[in-house]
Amino acid sequence: MREIGIGIIGVGVVGSSVVKILQKNRDIISARTGANFVVRRGVVSDLSKKREVDIELSDKVEDIISDPNIQIVIELMGGVDKAYDIACRVLEAGKSLVTANKAMLAYHRYDLEARAKGNAIGFEASVCGGIPVIKALKDGLGANHILSISGILNGTSNYILTRMIKENADFDSALKDAQQKGYAEKDPTLDINGMDAGHKLLILASLAYGIDAHPEDIIIDGITGIELSDIVFAKEFGYVVKLLGIANKCGEEIELRVHPALVKCEEMIAKVDGVMNAVSVVGDCVGEMLYYGAGAGGDATASAVISDLIEIAREKSSSMLGFDGRNIVHRLMPKEKISSRYYIRLRTYDKAGVLAKVSSIFSSNDISIQVLLQPETRDGVAELLFITHLSMESKVINALKEIEMQDFVAKKTFFIRIQD
Amino acid sequence: MREIGIGIIGVGVVGSSVVKILQKNRDIISARTGANFVVRRGVVSDLSKKREVDIELSDKVEDIISDPNIQIVIELMGGVDKAYDIACRVLEAGKSLVTANKAMLAYHRYDLEARAKGNAIGFEASVCGGIPVIKALKDGLGANHILSISGILNGTSNYILTRMIKENADFDSALKDAQQKGYAEKDPTLDINGMDAGHKLLILASLAYGIDAHPEDIIIDGITGIELSDIVFAKEFGYVVKLLGIANKCGEEIELRVHPALVKCEEMIAKVDGVMNAVSVVGDCVGEMLYYGAGAGGDATASAVISDLIEIAREKSSSMLGFDGRNIVHRLMPKEKISSRYYIRLRTYDKAGVLAKVSSIFSSNDISIQVLLQPETRDGVAELLFITHLSMESKVINALKEIEMQDFVAKKTFFIRIQD
Repeated sequence: MREIGIGIIGVGVVGSSVVKILQKNRDIISARTGANFVVRRGVVSDLSKKREVDIELSDKVEDIISDPNIQIVIELMGGVDKAYDIACRVLEAGKSLVTANKAMLAYHRYDLEARAKGNAIGFEASVCGGIPVIKALKDGLGANHILSISGILNGTSNYILTRMIKENADFDSALKDAQQKGYAEKDPTLDINGMDAGHKLLILASLAYGIDAHPEDIIIDGITGIELSDIVFAKEFGYVVKLLGIANKCGEEIELRVHPALVKCEEMIAKVDGVMNAVSVVGDCVGEMLYYGAGAGGDATASAVISDLIEIAREKSSSMLGFDGRNIVHRLMPKEKISSRYYIRLRTYDKAGVLAKVSSIFSSNDISIQVLLQPETRDGVAELLFITHLSMESKVINALKEIEMQDFVAKKTFFIRIQD
Repeated sequence: MREIGIGIIGVGVVGSSVVKILQKNRDIISARTGANFVVRRGVVSDLSKKREVDIELSDKVEDIISDPNIQIVIELMGGVDKAYDIACRVLEAGKSLVTANKAMLAYHRYDLEARAKGNAIGFEASVCGGIPVIKALKDGLGANHILSISGILNGTSNYILTRMIKENADFDSALKDAQQKGYAEKDPTLDINGMDAGHKLLILASLAYGIDAHPEDIIIDGITGIELSDIVFAKEFGYVVKLLGIANKCGEEIELRVHPALVKCEEMIAKVDGVMNAVSVVGDCVGEMLYYGAGAGGDATASAVISDLIEIAREKSSSMLGFDGRNIVHRLMPKEKISSRYYIRLRTYDKAGVLAKVSSIFSSNDISIQVLLQPETRDGVAELLFITHLSMESKVINALKEIEMQDFVAKKTFFIRIQD
């Protein structure tokens, strides 16, 4: 199988996840690309620090840039100017670049595009971690004029606001809680002042509108200053408070802004809680579309980084279904093996001993009942409603057949599976 | 600009939308692809029927297949065997194929893949209309072992169930209502018996697992048989009833089934109402991801069809941001032009005439108040909470500056914009 050499600049949480997932999910990744990714080297600033993964390390970027066996460089070092300088050198060396660096892209995306000269640049990981919203805007919604975008682009802020909304926590204690849980940095400034969301919004605006703007050019307000009384007032009028990145197309003018906003409770985006991210996009053909998922975390971000590797590796003429099953086996599970919890409805004539008989049939089929409800009898017909514990589907079907043979049954039994 | 010739087989609702959107959004589509799509011919069975769009028509498929100026054929005729036969001929002629035909794919996707021989086959429109879930599974989540999929894949069923859940409608009246609104066909069988969702689930299972299964191989139950009492019982225990397409990875075995299911109200997928579709995918790296949007309708489906055209047209080395602004202009709107509704919080000393003064400042800045709330005064400080009607941001900021100059103001004013 074709090998593609990878270099990683910055082997922290995300970099380590990339290495581990490329290893762990090698089977599925090569089934989807026909290629094998080999991490040839990582570059770190401190060689003495112990790393989670076992790859060759160097403290010189040049070792990656000059390595002819490395075709794709993943930049995960962060920061703006130094990262941009290195990205330029990667492209000059004729290598493809994958980056998760939203701050660099908020300033230098158009410079990088101009310098790419046929080398691919992937940046799916720069916005909303594992949610493939970059590809959605570039490809999936390509037919549409994008009328608006509103996104919960920062998980830290959303966690803090969710705690305030759901548990009446005040701002400071919600922030402290986020820090304890690892959802907020020790210095949470860029998350709670809206800047992180601003970087991401600018990237989305380039994909949707081709707009070249910098953070200074747009409104970026964070969530500091929000008090519990604001949240309570909003709630009273049917709103929740969310930190949104907003783009609106008004004719040829595009409005871009990041700020806390009151959003009607019924909106899908109002239902996005905790550290989760979501982006709602309204296209003139598709209407509203929403993408929801984990916006941060090593594995989710690494998933996006690797999706860029896959896109770069794939030949244009990738197969229709994009899945080569030769090295990986999935078999369809036979229907009989399915198990679930079940909601079951029986209608019986109102006779003595019905419940005892039904119970014994369930029990002889290894079905145990979690909930039983018997609403009032009407016209001599009683309704028995059950929720079962986890049961084999084949046994449930057997039991219902047995029950239906009883003379007290007034109507065919009915069940709905419970999705846990 | 490069021209790409298109032929359309089946010029009904979706086909007409494709033609219209290619025309209407020509600017944005060529900005994203560097290509110009030209619909050269449509094939219809009844030439005498009046069509919504003005393209050259024929009643012979051969006229498209043999046309050397047509590079991509869009199949929108529906049905299984005849459509498959035509699809094969399209591929044999060396053309790319785009299809929205889920029934054909449920049976023949692997046959088609084998016959593609380097010609592209796009089928984004076959599952969930405008939601780019095919591309998400093929590309965006490519790094992941997919642990599970649960999807609301049929809008008609979801509309009926939503009416039952929210308005206590019974099944028959909800179905009738769906038919009146155009959400259900006169013969709604394939929608309400789960078969339509089953076709889609099989397509998703091929992308996620490489599973070749047919509808007969899996459990496919529809929503007929569900009574209002089931819905009410479910509600009492915190569940809603949804028709789900479910895939679960259990080791090497993949469980596939379509049936109504009780879903806990808190799940994101439980919140998907009306005709909307959604697919929740759990990947081993990204965790849960949800895609939400319109699953049917001419324009949404056409949006997906065109996203396939764009993917086929695009060179592998598409630019980083995928947006060529030369022929299309978007300008950033100046911050001062922004308008919104506003939530405003004032803290003032409890003096006579405060409200009159504040009101007059708002009014002299053209800001009208929709809601005013004044909770109890505490420690001599009164809180005034406002919601404004639509106002210019620059005027709101002016007004707040004026207010802050008054001697009754106890604390800096604070506002949150309302997202409508």
